[in-house]
Amino acid sequence: MAAKPESYKPVSVHDLPRFAGIPTFMRLPYVAPADADEVNIGLIGVPWDGGTTNRAGARHGPRQIRDLSTMSRNAHHVTGIMPFELCHCADLGDTPVNPVDIEDTLNRIESFYNSVVERGIIPLTAGGDHLITLPVMRALCRDRPVGMVHFDAHTDTMDRYFGESKYTHGTPFRRAIEEGLLDPKRTVQIGIRGALNSDRDKDWGLEQGIRVIEIEEYNDLGVDAVIAEARRVVGDGETYVSFDVDALDPVYAPGTGTPEIGGITTYDAQKMIRGLRGLNLIGGDVVEVSPPFDMSGNTALVAVTMMFEILCLLAELASQRKPA
Amino acid sequence: MAAKPESYKPVSVHDLPRFAGIPTFMRLPYVAPADADEVNIGLIGVPWDGGTTNRAGARHGPRQIRDLSTMSRNAHHVTGIMPFELCHCADLGDTPVNPVDIEDTLNRIESFYNSVVERGIIPLTAGGDHLITLPVMRALCRDRPVGMVHFDAHTDTMDRYFGESKYTHGTPFRRAIEEGLLDPKRTVQIGIRGALNSDRDKDWGLEQGIRVIEIEEYNDLGVDAVIAEARRVVGDGETYVSFDVDALDPVYAPGTGTPEIGGITTYDAQKMIRGLRGLNLIGGDVVEVSPPFDMSGNTALVAVTMMFEILCLLAELASQRKPA
Amino acid sequence: MAAKPESYKPVSVHDLPRFAGIPTFMRLPYVAPADADEVNIGLIGVPWDGGTTNRAGARHGPRQIRDLSTMSRNAHHVTGIMPFELCHCADLGDTPVNPVDIEDTLNRIESFYNSVVERGIIPLTAGGDHLITLPVMRALCRDRPVGMVHFDAHTDTMDRYFGESKYTHGTPFRRAIEEGLLDPKRTVQIGIRGALNSDRDKDWGLEQGIRVIEIEEYNDLGVDAVIAEARRVVGDGETYVSFDVDALDPVYAPGTGTPEIGGITTYDAQKMIRGLRGLNLIGGDVVEVSPPFDMSGNTALVAVTMMFEILCLLAELASQRKPA
Amino acid sequence: MAAKPESYKPVSVHDLPRFAGIPTFMRLPYVAPADADEVNIGLIGVPWDGGTTNRAGARHGPRQIRDLSTMSRNAHHVTGIMPFELCHCADLGDTPVNPVDIEDTLNRIESFYNSVVERGIIPLTAGGDHLITLPVMRALCRDRPVGMVHFDAHTDTMDRYFGESKYTHGTPFRRAIEEGLLDPKRTVQIGIRGALNSDRDKDWGLEQGIRVIEIEEYNDLGVDAVIAEARRVVGDGETYVSFDVDALDPVYAPGTGTPEIGGITTYDAQKMIRGLRGLNLIGGDVVEVSPPFDMSGNTALVAVTMMFEILCLLAELASQRKPA
Amino acid sequence: MAAKPESYKPVSVHDLPRFAGIPTFMRLPYVAPADADEVNIGLIGVPWDGGTTNRAGARHGPRQIRDLSTMSRNAHHVTGIMPFELCHCADLGDTPVNPVDIEDTLNRIESFYNSVVERGIIPLTAGGDHLITLPVMRALCRDRPVGMVHFDAHTDTMDRYFGESKYTHGTPFRRAIEEGLLDPKRTVQIGIRGALNSDRDKDWGLEQGIRVIEIEEYNDLGVDAVIAEARRVVGDGETYVSFDVDALDPVYAPGTGTPEIGGITTYDAQKMIRGLRGLNLIGGDVVEVSPPFDMSGNTALVAVTMMFEILCLLAELASQRKPA
Amino acid sequence: MAAKPESYKPVSVHDLPRFAGIPTFMRLPYVAPADADEVNIGLIGVPWDGGTTNRAGARHGPRQIRDLSTMSRNAHHVTGIMPFELCHCADLGDTPVNPVDIEDTLNRIESFYNSVVERGIIPLTAGGDHLITLPVMRALCRDRPVGMVHFDAHTDTMDRYFGESKYTHGTPFRRAIEEGLLDPKRTVQIGIRGALNSDRDKDWGLEQGIRVIEIEEYNDLGVDAVIAEARRVVGDGETYVSFDVDALDPVYAPGTGTPEIGGITTYDAQKMIRGLRGLNLIGGDVVEVSPPFDMSGNTALVAVTMMFEILCLLAELASQRKPA
Repeated sequence: MAAKPESYKPVSVHDLPRFAGIPTFMRLPYVAPADADEVNIGLIGVPWDGGTTNRAGARHGPRQIRDLSTMSRNAHHVTGIMPFELCHCADLGDTPVNPVDIEDTLNRIESFYNSVVERGIIPLTAGGDHLITLPVMRALCRDRPVGMVHFDAHTDTMDRYFGESKYTHGTPFRRAIEEGLLDPKRTVQIGIRGALNSDRDKDWGLEQGIRVIEIEEYNDLGVDAVIAEARRVVGDGETYVSFDVDALDPVYAPGTGTPEIGGITTYDAQKMIRGLRGLNLIGGDVVEVSPPFDMSGNTALVAVTMMFEILCLLAELASQRKPA
Repeated sequence: MAAKPESYKPVSVHDLPRFAGIPTFMRLPYVAPADADEVNIGLIGVPWDGGTTNRAGARHGPRQIRDLSTMSRNAHHVTGIMPFELCHCADLGDTPVNPVDIEDTLNRIESFYNSVVERGIIPLTAGGDHLITLPVMRALCRDRPVGMVHFDAHTDTMDRYFGESKYTHGTPFRRAIEEGLLDPKRTVQIGIRGALNSDRDKDWGLEQGIRVIEIEEYNDLGVDAVIAEARRVVGDGETYVSFDVDALDPVYAPGTGTPEIGGITTYDAQKMIRGLRGLNLIGGDVVEVSPPFDMSGNTALVAVTMMFEILCLLAELASQRKPA
Repeated sequence: MAAKPESYKPVSVHDLPRFAGIPTFMRLPYVAPADADEVNIGLIGVPWDGGTTNRAGARHGPRQIRDLSTMSRNAHHVTGIMPFELCHCADLGDTPVNPVDIEDTLNRIESFYNSVVERGIIPLTAGGDHLITLPVMRALCRDRPVGMVHFDAHTDTMDRYFGESKYTHGTPFRRAIEEGLLDPKRTVQIGIRGALNSDRDKDWGLEQGIRVIEIEEYNDLGVDAVIAEARRVVGDGETYVSFDVDALDPVYAPGTGTPEIGGITTYDAQKMIRGLRGLNLIGGDVVEVSPPFDMSGNTALVAVTMMFEILCLLAELASQRKPA
Repeated sequence: MAAKPESYKPVSVHDLPRFAGIPTFMRLPYVAPADADEVNIGLIGVPWDGGTTNRAGARHGPRQIRDLSTMSRNAHHVTGIMPFELCHCADLGDTPVNPVDIEDTLNRIESFYNSVVERGIIPLTAGGDHLITLPVMRALCRDRPVGMVHFDAHTDTMDRYFGESKYTHGTPFRRAIEEGLLDPKRTVQIGIRGALNSDRDKDWGLEQGIRVIEIEEYNDLGVDAVIAEARRVVGDGETYVSFDVDALDPVYAPGTGTPEIGGITTYDAQKMIRGLRGLNLIGGDVVEVSPPFDMSGNTALVAVTMMFEILCLLAELASQRKPA
Repeated sequence: MAAKPESYKPVSVHDLPRFAGIPTFMRLPYVAPADADEVNIGLIGVPWDGGTTNRAGARHGPRQIRDLSTMSRNAHHVTGIMPFELCHCADLGDTPVNPVDIEDTLNRIESFYNSVVERGIIPLTAGGDHLITLPVMRALCRDRPVGMVHFDAHTDTMDRYFGESKYTHGTPFRRAIEEGLLDPKRTVQIGIRGALNSDRDKDWGLEQGIRVIEIEEYNDLGVDAVIAEARRVVGDGETYVSFDVDALDPVYAPGTGTPEIGGITTYDAQKMIRGLRGLNLIGGDVVEVSPPFDMSGNTALVAVTMMFEILCLLAELASQRKPA
Repeated sequence: MAAKPESYKPVSVHDLPRFAGIPTFMRLPYVAPADADEVNIGLIGVPWDGGTTNRAGARHGPRQIRDLSTMSRNAHHVTGIMPFELCHCADLGDTPVNPVDIEDTLNRIESFYNSVVERGIIPLTAGGDHLITLPVMRALCRDRPVGMVHFDAHTDTMDRYFGESKYTHGTPFRRAIEEGLLDPKRTVQIGIRGALNSDRDKDWGLEQGIRVIEIEEYNDLGVDAVIAEARRVVGDGETYVSFDVDALDPVYAPGTGTPEIGGITTYDAQKMIRGLRGLNLIGGDVVEVSPPFDMSGNTALVAVTMMFEILCLLAELASQRKPA
């Protein structure tokens, strides 16, 4: 599959029903990164769960998300944005991973994203467990820290596990801050909740200056105020969006490894992503979809709808950045 | 089964537990339409999904709804309405359908409903995909257009599919308006949402005068205001209620063909149906329950609870209309 | 539903597809026992699992069996027997049961079967756990012991449970022998296997003279020899057939309470039932289908196919016994 | 397992991942009641569903709850309470039950709880169907009636079933009031909803003085006012907390026997339990988790999170009551 | 995707794990028919179930088969055949279909296969319901009748349905014989079983000269004799292989629309396909995989393994036919 | 839990039903290795799947096996062996593992088994993926190579993965042979089948002298001859039994990571294990049960039944070895 597609449009439902055809993200053409010079936004899968400390399965996430993504459509019903009209979108395939070697995998993912970043492609990623955001950031933010809007039930800023293990899906943002990829003072975490291993779990992130909006504050503030606060925190600088599906209540996303009850609704999550319109976004991801825990595909449908919300924002930006 | 029942009451749970017995709708007696002269409200299944363009399965809906309907009870806990005390209710069975011929099926369904309408029976239907509402309306509204309160994620007012196909579950209300069965100016659609195939998808319905309450407006207005608006739109004229379970958020109704995240809660849906009390209702349906996508039966339980809500309204009307 | 049907034939698939219609056993008419004077063979559900000591759920068996039985057809492909042409078959509904009172339930079931037996109807029963065979036998064999061909993984001849409990699904045939309903010397048990609570579990049945064909002997003999041996044991006398689906390997019948691996195939089970052709059969049952442990319905499909095999034998007998 | 543990702490996740190890409640040590003199709070399973009139399965609840409870952590994220630091918690195992004898079982459960109460251990129970609360109360409240905060879709104050049966999961609180274990005037029921068998179903409880907050009033009042009202009703006296998972909307707790749509969210339920902080609580339970109807374990995860919420309250009380 | 691939080899598992990557059949490159001049064997999906009279779902078959096909490997463990070394294999994608128009769909499928046949590509098809074999044959056998080895539980030689409907998944081979595409005297059907709608169902096919090996004869003959008989029937002429997964016992292939218990094992099916080695095969298909009835994918895994068995035979033939 | 149990017997089913109680292996007492001096046979879980290259999940195996093992009984129905009467059996818990570090985990497992081996306890292990057999052997066979009867679909003698990775579930026996733990000339592999990555995959093992009985030879020989051959290969020397559930046909064990169709039946597997009676066995394992791919527990039930078969052999040996 070594050539550029004739168009960067989804296969039409009038040519092929939604259940038909090889499932690429949103029925877009597959383009290998090496052929992607014309691509503005690349949808990428990272099929990896080697950082998962309890229930694995997110390695199967990208495939199920692609499957359900064939239910996607073209025009946003609120903003009217039509991303596939605004810029070139393509499925860049899955990154390579090594299921039995974490550090090798982190390198393979980073290397793949380097080739994406070098071409000026904005990445929109489907995970994989949350550890994958670290190598994405190593490529995307290698020369300066960026801000982040982070939806999650967990802060993912733990330090070590089993004494020595630095890389798990509970540690990516500690590492990203340590490595200068993420600016904690421009980071907002929304939806944090659930019992803790210790009452000191929250301390490190807060000390770094992360703005943590726990679910109780989230519900007390209301969605509009949360959007405003998130915009205030990240400001005008470059910002990454990371959406862990366990930010949602498990009824919306049962197919995940570490569900926490009492979470966000999909309606409000959609509204919050829309609320990021106009920010200086450089990429995003939706992670922690674990198909073995939801074979119905409903979690993946939620995930791909969130990807579509993010895509609309990125496409608008991409179209504004394009040379005349 | 050629005779009238001794009573039109559900089998008592003190005689037979809920899991026992041949499952009819709400444990009512089965009465063939030809024997149904005494029946006021007929519960009818239309086991058909030939209009489904993506995930079929609604053909199995009526059976699963009957199964779960054995968990129904007799008295509405808010209004106090006891429908089986107010009028004669019966399960009229399933309409005939032809799984491999759409137009033949539309005729068979219409013919069945003609025999229902001729007897003055108010129909309460369990689908089936949404195309089935068209032949129901052809029988029920044949001589004048009626109003409609329509709960759905989709407007179902598309025109054609694959160039030539006029009859799909995305087109029934376009056809009904064209055929003079449905008055668009007395039609309100509640819960519409989700990405569109094109940013012009909304135009036709709005041009006809349909009042479309998208989910964003729905949430901004609040349920009480939506009820008021729905009542204003349909007014005092004859009105049909059509409830597509995909109006609900997929967590409440995963067993459906075209789920859209970010939908209505069952609590609010119940409240809205109750809010239609006193309108001039002529029938209703609950459609798009697709058991292969929810073998647990939870979607069917939701569907039958909505049917019970509608039934209470219809029974009250039937009792008021009965000659002294 | 107080009258006799116009015919005792299944609804034709050319009138109504298999997924349509209220599910009676094999799409036969429902006839209450009080109206069943013309019925030769009654298909009866006993929705009961109060005798289950581990995993309950067989109370839901008759309903799921009825559902899957709509896939039944009319002519046996090997023997050519067409049961619905030979005699009047009908669905007699479910017996009453009391989910919270075992002895009350045993009485209710027996009473129902008394009304069946009094009309000369041959009963073919869908359970329910295996305890239900006891009250069936109390009605059917009340005045003399009969023989039995018994397919099962377990002998079901235990004595007591928790010290005092006489009635469980592990004890029916101990009770039946004690009560003079079952002749142990004309009883053959096929498919017995699995670890035992004690190495003396087998003793009582063997002492009574039951012919036990454990699975190892069964496999060594081969199906033809097992059939011959079963026919030898029961001889020409009146004989009951009891088919516990756990006789089958759990891959064929996962929806059951006490699966034992290493069991019989459905093909061989069908062959063995056919091998009983011409015996003096007075009724039969298929028991221990537990839908919560197989929501797919595959176990119920197996069960109803076994019921059809037994029905063909019973129908041939009924037609031979009918007065000219 | 006849000795006291070295500590009453959960196994650390740094020693053994959450998926590893024999699953006790919250990874606590198992201690038989006879060895539990040092225990302050006992987590107990009652694996019983003999009072269930429709869909059984709650007998499997405690095991699945233990399984999912290994996802529990140590510190409450809102109150900061660390129950395992405040007092000695242990898994006391399951009570004996007799699956085929209701009254024998009620006696066995009561006897088990007598040994718990005699040691001054506060019981936190995982059911089992709701009938199990009756024998718990017979031990815990034997000498005076207590108050109760009761979350449920049903009042569970029915009288009889099938004419004669006094003990079902619909009757425990009628019996408890009759037996002087429960003070109806200090009882509040929250979340009641769903159609009724008769419009007189509500009368008895109201006549006794129970404060029933139906779901409509609940939603109109809002959670904060409901908390205040519940606190007002129970006052300063001894109070029991009983949480039937069907109080929740079925999307949060599909694994239950009698789901009613339109219920409470988990977020609000957590908030309400937290709102009971400081009341004079003497024990609690979470009941009606039925694993066969939710093999995913999501319902059990909800249940154990509610147990953790209650545990935090009980632990704080236990630490305050401990002698210096 | 408008160009030829660099190689016609599956993606190596050392480059990308089996769970990674966009799922094409057997991880082969996707090549549109228009670009497929170099392709020898084309793997094609026909996502269609419009001919299904009971349980639909086979429209989703090709996608699930592609998903599970990523577990395929390269070398046959018995014959040593390495198909991807012998010739050029590719995934040609799915044919277009129209979910709401049978005849339009039959034309679209035939047209797609015409373009395949014109390029001399041997088709290996994943269905879809069995009706799809008719349009495949219309393209592949348009100028002369061919022989067929047909594995199935059903003969699929019915005439009409609901009076007028000629095209269902029960009629393809009646139509194919009538249209001169299939030579009944060179057709063998293996695994036929199950009750019949009428005792005359078998007559038409036998009258045409089809060799029907019902499951009873199949088991009596043994697999080796069945292979010999199949080879005798089809002889040296051109022969098509059609494998309906319901030929298998439902335990191996529960995900199908019309399961019949008592079927073939996968081991024997594999052996029989291998037994066709050296016949003059012109194509093959595996049909009736219905994912909604087996979301586990196990049925699809069986299907793709059968496809691999057929592929090995076709590849050997293709390599022998290739010009030097 | 720091003390020795009063008895080494399973909890009686007359004291506690099978669904009740904290699930230990076969309802045996839990004894930590440090307290296990009196134990003869230790049942041990290794919850680990870090060596899995495709579908993970076996980390959850031990817990599900424990759950289903509560259906075990005490006496073997063919041999009459009562293992719990012959020697002291106990559940020794799960080994520690580190989900994000393979080599650390191999060390932790080995260390746990060292403490078992030092006490002279015979280990019977529930996996975990097949890589876990390597650290078990490092402890158990550290000073000399042993023989092995190995049931599997795969040889598990691959060399490397992704170039550098030595430790995966496809390599344990290559490593074990290289490390002098396993004598290839006294190793027999039964059930091997399925397509290969290359036609040279088989070479290395055969060159070492492993006796590989592929499924085709297995079926041609018959079970009795296979048993004889296995006994011939391993002879009188010390021998380990390793049972990968994917040796079985996937219908018996769908809950596994790498299913291969066309496998062994459970009946024959039981017979083969029984056929090892009297060999000089030093331990055994059952591996590759992956609960996320079979939430029903049926695969785990198969696994624990195989464990019981092995246990009976080990218990007989242990009783013979015990000092008088």
